[in-house]
Amino acid sequence: MRTLYHLWLSPACRKVRLVLAEKHLAFTLEVEPVWQRRRAFLALNPAGEVPVLIEPDERVLADATAIAEYLDEVAPEPNLLGATPEARAETRRLVAWFDRKFDAEVTANLVGEKIVKRLSGVGQPDSGAIRAGQANIHTHLDYIGYLADRRLWLAGNCLTLADLTAAAHLSCVDYLGSVPWEGHPGAKEWYARIKSRPSFRSLLADSVPGMPPPPAYADLDF
Amino acid sequence: MRTLYHLWLSPACRKVRLVLAEKHLAFTLEVEPVWQRRRAFLALNPAGEVPVLIEPDERVLADATAIAEYLDEVAPEPNLLGATPEARAETRRLVAWFDRKFDAEVTANLVGEKIVKRLSGVGQPDSGAIRAGQANIHTHLDYIGYLADRRLWLAGNCLTLADLTAAAHLSCVDYLGSVPWEGHPGAKEWYARIKSRPSFRSLLADSVPGMPPPPAYADLDF
Repeated sequence: MRTLYHLWLSPACRKVRLVLAEKHLAFTLEVEPVWQRRRAFLALNPAGEVPVLIEPDERVLADATAIAEYLDEVAPEPNLLGATPEARAETRRLVAWFDRKFDAEVTANLVGEKIVKRLSGVGQPDSGAIRAGQANIHTHLDYIGYLADRRLWLAGNCLTLADLTAAAHLSCVDYLGSVPWEGHPGAKEWYARIKSRPSFRSLLADSVPGMPPPPAYADLDF
Repeated sequence: MRTLYHLWLSPACRKVRLVLAEKHLAFTLEVEPVWQRRRAFLALNPAGEVPVLIEPDERVLADATAIAEYLDEVAPEPNLLGATPEARAETRRLVAWFDRKFDAEVTANLVGEKIVKRLSGVGQPDSGAIRAGQANIHTHLDYIGYLADRRLWLAGNCLTLADLTAAAHLSCVDYLGSVPWEGHPGAKEWYARIKSRPSFRSLLADSVPGMPPPPAYADLDF
């Protein structure tokens, strides 16, 4: 059995949970409060970050991208990167878009300010950052709509790590009720499709202690 | 012939230059002042970021990780990721270490404050950030020394994308004369080895207009 060290509203951890579930690999979750910097955890990952995956053979894997690529190599069905080098380059370009650009412009401003600061006890939310995140998200939803209008999934006609990465970020923002779905029908239709996949069920059942999600979060007909 | 859109002191661009050179793939460089947000460039990469690589068949590739993985697939010699899934996971873990952790803790504080702000005209360097970068770099040089003491190269016994990524970041900081090599003999020995590779020559010849590097930057016996 695999063990995944994670945090509830971490997009990187949610991505790995989705990859494991899409590949039907069983795992248990362990919450790791990384801000405590536990020695035993730092021995697993000197970066002090989640996700960390312990494989059935006790091998330790760290970093969401490294874990996702590893799992796609050792458990190749379904293929989550693409069938050709060109398709894989497009998947990886979009993974980087969401993990770096969306993360800096949206996730850090909304989830970082509203949740991470509270959980880790490092100060008050910055209202300017929250306003920036709320403004920035529209461009990204437009881009998702643009891609989903031209392709079945974000990187092409098969579901890939690009969809799982985008959905991992958006699901965290959606947990706060902060995604303006109504103005973005293309992005909403794409998210409805990914939200109804069996791999998404465990994410929709998440409930951070003392901070329950709004009803629409787990509603497939949102 | 390939064309690489780049900026001089961008670690992401330097990484792609090193990968291309290690694989003996010829290319020309085009400087792209991304802050101007040229329409023709945004059509190539809607993220508005460098590096962007135009392949000989006119295919457009964006994002340093996507480009590096693509090149390793289509030009597999020398292998820059590792021979097994486990080796590749270790390479990718360290690539993420430098591209995310080192970047946030060191590169952004030193190169970002001293150079990028000046070139893009967005304000004055923040002396607190510069002090933080100068303090943080020691931990990373220690970690490089720790790894290089146990392995021939950072991710194992072959040169990989982990070494090229770490060296791409360090070479930008070294251009500012801001790497305290003297206290870190293990990291210095590793950097001397990578600095003397033919693939590094073009980086050592870089000279940003109006901002020449210190003499030790290009000196192999620094």
